[in-house]
Amino acid sequence: MSIKEKVVDKAQAASQAARGLANLDTTTKNEALLAMADALEDSSDFILNENQKDMKQGRENGLNDALMDRLLLTEARLEKMANGLREVAQFDDPIGEVTGMKKRPNGLQIGKVKVPLGVIGMIYEARPNVTADATGLCLKAGNAVLLRGGSEAINSNQAVTEVIAKAAYKSGIPTGAIQLIETTDREAVQVMFELNEYLDVLIPRGGPGLINAVINNSTVPVIETGVGNCHTYIDNEADQEMAQEIVMNAKTQRPGVCNAMETLLVHSEIAEDFLPEMVTKLQEADVEIRGDETVQRLVSGVQPADEEDWSTEYLDYILAVKVIDGFEEAVDHIHQYNTKHSEAIITDNYHKARKFLNIVDAAAVYVNASTRFTDGGQFGLGSEIGISTQKLHARGPMSVNELTTTKFVGYGDGQIRE
Amino acid sequence: MSIKEKVVDKAQAASQAARGLANLDTTTKNEALLAMADALEDSSDFILNENQKDMKQGRENGLNDALMDRLLLTEARLEKMANGLREVAQFDDPIGEVTGMKKRPNGLQIGKVKVPLGVIGMIYEARPNVTADATGLCLKAGNAVLLRGGSEAINSNQAVTEVIAKAAYKSGIPTGAIQLIETTDREAVQVMFELNEYLDVLIPRGGPGLINAVINNSTVPVIETGVGNCHTYIDNEADQEMAQEIVMNAKTQRPGVCNAMETLLVHSEIAEDFLPEMVTKLQEADVEIRGDETVQRLVSGVQPADEEDWSTEYLDYILAVKVIDGFEEAVDHIHQYNTKHSEAIITDNYHKARKFLNIVDAAAVYVNASTRFTDGGQFGLGSEIGISTQKLHARGPMSVNELTTTKFVGYGDGQIRE
Repeated sequence: MSIKEKVVDKAQAASQAARGLANLDTTTKNEALLAMADALEDSSDFILNENQKDMKQGRENGLNDALMDRLLLTEARLEKMANGLREVAQFDDPIGEVTGMKKRPNGLQIGKVKVPLGVIGMIYEARPNVTADATGLCLKAGNAVLLRGGSEAINSNQAVTEVIAKAAYKSGIPTGAIQLIETTDREAVQVMFELNEYLDVLIPRGGPGLINAVINNSTVPVIETGVGNCHTYIDNEADQEMAQEIVMNAKTQRPGVCNAMETLLVHSEIAEDFLPEMVTKLQEADVEIRGDETVQRLVSGVQPADEEDWSTEYLDYILAVKVIDGFEEAVDHIHQYNTKHSEAIITDNYHKARKFLNIVDAAAVYVNASTRFTDGGQFGLGSEIGISTQKLHARGPMSVNELTTTKFVGYGDGQIRE
Repeated sequence: MSIKEKVVDKAQAASQAARGLANLDTTTKNEALLAMADALEDSSDFILNENQKDMKQGRENGLNDALMDRLLLTEARLEKMANGLREVAQFDDPIGEVTGMKKRPNGLQIGKVKVPLGVIGMIYEARPNVTADATGLCLKAGNAVLLRGGSEAINSNQAVTEVIAKAAYKSGIPTGAIQLIETTDREAVQVMFELNEYLDVLIPRGGPGLINAVINNSTVPVIETGVGNCHTYIDNEADQEMAQEIVMNAKTQRPGVCNAMETLLVHSEIAEDFLPEMVTKLQEADVEIRGDETVQRLVSGVQPADEEDWSTEYLDYILAVKVIDGFEEAVDHIHQYNTKHSEAIITDNYHKARKFLNIVDAAAVYVNASTRFTDGGQFGLGSEIGISTQKLHARGPMSVNELTTTKFVGYGDGQIRE
């Protein structure tokens, strides 16, 4: 069987299962999620053993520490995955909700009902927890899933998929609803890009290289996720103490994630007052500062920032800093360089706060808060399958609700169109 | 200037205008729509004169009657376009609505606000009315628009755009918000496909060839519209008189549109009783019948249907007819061949009605009604920019609400993430 045939086979099986899943009752879905969670814990020896094969391979291939850490599974991490599935079981089932039902003048009753998307293709990188997390969210929303994880995690992903799929099917999820592409050949991804007949959406999760490859090559509709070149703008009317705390949090609390701040914009009127202490604090936290000329003049130990720095998502202990001449310039800078993820203004001025929220184009915009809040859990929406940075379908953290679509249903008594 | 530079220039101008449009007040937008409507009527001599150039060219190029009719503008059609804009002025402004605003445990207040998509690219074929209709809906939802009409309507489209843009800008719409690509070179469309930096969505309106070209080649997110291989299934428990009326309406009331019926499925138990009279009526209305073997045996004057007929959107006085052995076979046939547009069952059986609505996958599903109802106006949603047959973002008739997205807004007092 060719790689293409293998992938098409799995997609077909998922599509077939999706028809049954679409109308599965909530109780069955929830019981399956709980059984999958138990199975993960009960099979921890098997899964951790398979994970060790990936770890060994990773060491041999010289993966860096950060990647090795992402790859690693432990009892505690498996428990976290299991608890993630249990949390999803607690979510409201979005499927079947009817909105806007009304009677038209001719008596035809028309409304919109929430239905699953169908089959969701996930293309992701090192972390094996995505295998369970994504499957749980997809199933809860009545979708089948076709998973393609990173080649470095293939043994772990196979083990996790085998364990949760077995538990799911035993609990009444239609067989075939959970599919993992087991070949690590890149051709498999290319095949997924053209599976419009079977896949309703592709969600890439990973670095900009992966995401751009999917956007540029897929004819299946894509939800773009994750790349975050996030800014915090410190206005001349900011509470500077608050600004310092927010900047420290947005940059250093977890620099490797997409909602961490990458560029700090400071109003020129307060730059001399604000920057020296701020930069010192950041440097004490091991943050490398790359600044424009004004920043270099005001504080020492600053690397010069070039054009590329304004567009870079460092995901690291590095921060670009720019002094700007006012609100409009800050907004223009953000408009030019942001990836429409998360943006914040720190100000005490009512009008500027309101204007920033109105005109800055991003999935999440904040006044006087850390950009780090852009997260399904933090927003009270539950765990997320990704953070959409595009405008179609879903924007910001996506959970079960964003894995659905709608259809119109019409109840007639013989109505015909005049 | 190269074709690429010209297109990019226009897209850039639209993108720049979109920033101003996004926060324009409703009154200004509505007054602009009314001024555009008046301008269309006041400039009818100019527009009709330009349209005559297209008609002359069309005759010389041997366009068929249907295409020539689509191309033609008249005083009455201009008035209809103007009234379309006046109707859009009456719509509620979707922009700015906040939903789900709540206070998180840390005091951060988070909600979702409805915002424009940004810049909408429209690629469409012969009808020049799309130029005004699409522009009106886009502007009402705060979007700029980049239009690419069919080459055969270029003079008409230029005239309409010139007239409405002038009126719009005079009424306070940011200059540049309405852009028409004036080169008829196909390269311009290719350039649009890659304008991810400036275009937020591409909406193709036209035949399957155009739509597939956009889906297969665009890296800009696409909303798929319109192709409708629609079925009506006559159940053995149907009211046959009602079924006849619905079939006649769905096939013959306006066969050239996407929500017209293309295949009739009849339960074998009633085929002998139902089909002869039904087929005669259809034939009397000049409908050519292409049937499977049973249909050919039961009635005369039937052409044999082959595999291709089951997948064809005729958009003409042609109907494929198949006798099937029951509900499940009907649903399977629809699943295999439909384009997820509009599907109907005619039955008196409660359980089958409910099941059909639940399991058939389409933008609109009906019980005991004509598929011809799938339309923004008929659904009470107002005029539409197209009917989405995909599952992401919007499904079914799309009006101003579907031309928006959301962003999360967060009001903080110094919140940082623990």
